[in-house]
Amino acid sequence: MDINMKLIEGGVCAAKGFKANGIHCGIRKNRTKKDLSLILSELPASAAAVYTTNLVKGAPIEVTKKHISNGYARAIICNSGNANTCNADGIEIAEKMSECAAVALGISSDDIVIASTGVIGQPLDLTPISAGIPSLAEGLSENGSAAAAEGIMTTDTVKKEIALEFSIGGRLCRIGGIAKGSGMIHPNMATMLVFITTDVSISPAMLQKALSSDIADTFNMISIDGDTSTNDMVAVLANGMAGNSEIVSEGSDFEAFMEALNTVNIHLCRMIAGDGEGATKLLECRATGAKDIKTAKAVAKSVICSSLVKAAMFGSDANWGRVLCAIGYSGADVDVRKIGVSFKSSKGLITVCENGAGIPFSEEKAKEILLEKEIEILISLGQGNYCSTAWGCDLTYDYVKINGDYRT
Amino acid sequence: MDINMKLIEGGVCAAKGFKANGIHCGIRKNRTKKDLSLILSELPASAAAVYTTNLVKGAPIEVTKKHISNGYARAIICNSGNANTCNADGIEIAEKMSECAAVALGISSDDIVIASTGVIGQPLDLTPISAGIPSLAEGLSENGSAAAAEGIMTTDTVKKEIALEFSIGGRLCRIGGIAKGSGMIHPNMATMLVFITTDVSISPAMLQKALSSDIADTFNMISIDGDTSTNDMVAVLANGMAGNSEIVSEGSDFEAFMEALNTVNIHLCRMIAGDGEGATKLLECRATGAKDIKTAKAVAKSVICSSLVKAAMFGSDANWGRVLCAIGYSGADVDVRKIGVSFKSSKGLITVCENGAGIPFSEEKAKEILLEKEIEILISLGQGNYCSTAWGCDLTYDYVKINGDYRT
Repeated sequence: MDINMKLIEGGVCAAKGFKANGIHCGIRKNRTKKDLSLILSELPASAAAVYTTNLVKGAPIEVTKKHISNGYARAIICNSGNANTCNADGIEIAEKMSECAAVALGISSDDIVIASTGVIGQPLDLTPISAGIPSLAEGLSENGSAAAAEGIMTTDTVKKEIALEFSIGGRLCRIGGIAKGSGMIHPNMATMLVFITTDVSISPAMLQKALSSDIADTFNMISIDGDTSTNDMVAVLANGMAGNSEIVSEGSDFEAFMEALNTVNIHLCRMIAGDGEGATKLLECRATGAKDIKTAKAVAKSVICSSLVKAAMFGSDANWGRVLCAIGYSGADVDVRKIGVSFKSSKGLITVCENGAGIPFSEEKAKEILLEKEIEILISLGQGNYCSTAWGCDLTYDYVKINGDYRT
Repeated sequence: MDINMKLIEGGVCAAKGFKANGIHCGIRKNRTKKDLSLILSELPASAAAVYTTNLVKGAPIEVTKKHISNGYARAIICNSGNANTCNADGIEIAEKMSECAAVALGISSDDIVIASTGVIGQPLDLTPISAGIPSLAEGLSENGSAAAAEGIMTTDTVKKEIALEFSIGGRLCRIGGIAKGSGMIHPNMATMLVFITTDVSISPAMLQKALSSDIADTFNMISIDGDTSTNDMVAVLANGMAGNSEIVSEGSDFEAFMEALNTVNIHLCRMIAGDGEGATKLLECRATGAKDIKTAKAVAKSVICSSLVKAAMFGSDANWGRVLCAIGYSGADVDVRKIGVSFKSSKGLITVCENGAGIPFSEEKAKEILLEKEIEILISLGQGNYCSTAWGCDLTYDYVKINGDYRT
């Protein structure tokens, strides 16, 4: 579908009617690191979110679920530096944080999506947050996406933003997002957070449908270290200010929105994976020729999650035996004798395994390909037409360093 | 049950009628590292084995399955340095290796258990093996267990042997084992191999039953890096030379044997886990108070497999939030509000979490406990009487180094 999609500036403020800001309020000791972010929609927006499947859930997740249960929200507040998880007073603190924001913004507390990221099991002190919210709200601006993106970062080394312009039914629409990947100054969970804003007019039900469907092929296909966090959340606000006729069912408009949403999500996935804790390389594993989608996903994800594959990629080692091994224990029903494996980067493509067995290849050429920063691991299963992609990163000394350091 | 169990010397040669040897035949370039091992029973022995569940299986596994399908074997031959996996001629090479051994030993090729460990996807050259087998066989001795244990090592830093004496029906019996853990000089798979010998008289069916049942609580509860190898195998030979009345059904004799087998297996599990690639610490995670055994196992295994828990243990960091996180995504149906977590070592025990939330504790004391080389992570679930233990190791710089190094 041609929806005239193009990259634009502005992140979560690219869509009409959205402002954002990020400040240092004092949750973190380091004054140069922002730790509190806010995003506001001028009008009430359809709201949808997906959350971690971990049974241990951050208190903010429980509160957000309640707040957006009616399908609408106007603002997103998020702190970094403390996950507000496994604290006896977690829900209470999250509600109070939400109320402080509601007062400053002159909106209802029920219209606020709330998120926290950081160390778990340490009480979250409301004092710096409540003191910081008035100036946070006052500083909201249409140029505030970068500040908001910074305020949710933990050990992320780059801020993660994207925005697109596209058309639905002849109307120019915009969608943008910010994300945080894995890591903490007091390292703990890889708490992934993604906030997306759009001025598309879409019902809450269709927004949730679009998000839930897209997540399966995007954020649920990332792995940094196999540890599902307690605070993961992807939330979308759609305020309708683009003026398209509201999307209330499937059809070409919904598909156009899905395409834009998917582009935003894949971009953020790649940014999160490539900036995984300690990562030096972005890995993209594409499984093709699967007999069904379940098989394709299981294979791509198993390879991207393998510590041995990840360590081999760190060493630029074309160790395809580890790829086959990871396919073999993926649980997917594949015919090993039909598997092919290639490695690809900007330096070219090299096939190293065909029909489940090694073939002669130039180790020199393989090394040249694998020394690049973005590596594709291409797996052909030769059993059908389904395919799937998963994203991850290499396993490095720095991953161990970041996560082996003492919390204090 | 009191079976008068005591530790003895001799490894796989402790049981009556077993000889062993290990040599450097030339599969490896390093002449100081043995690469071929042999174990022989004077009499035909009941044979049982369990194998990797990986769909990608080493050729030796296929051959061994065929050879012991009648329930009996007399010898075990194993090389290190090459896994003979994902090679087009793998089965043929494994059969030929077996035939060479059979000729040298004057037994049938069908009576040989064969195993290989090392890099996968590289053709295994039979030449050094066939040249080495005659002297390997000639050197078989009752003092050869240590040499055999060395011949199967890859990046293992210590050889892994144990032997026990115990009684069944008034008869003195012996059981011993050798094992290799995870790592390769050309690193590839964590190919775990365990060979156990005993002079107990037991039918092949009951031997397989004992092994299959015990594995579920021992070797299947180890994780070094979450990568299930292609060549894992645990094989037992029982030659009956202790003279007990043959065990052909369940009952007190079978239980006595199970107890001895379990003791051997737990010892080897702990040695394998503590000597995992790059490991500086042995981790033992014990989940108690589970509502059923499935829950207990899922919890213990999920915690022992968590990269974040493993990295925290490397850093001697009492980061219990990561333990809760790993329980939360284990798939086990637990009540988070009832979970307690303690850390224990020879320096004492410290409780850090009760009822799913943190409690005040001395970080100094926790650090002192976690600086030890053997750490217990104790999880109480408060929902029943089932428990399970899993073993693993910390995640260190050296794990990345070993597995990130180029193969050549």
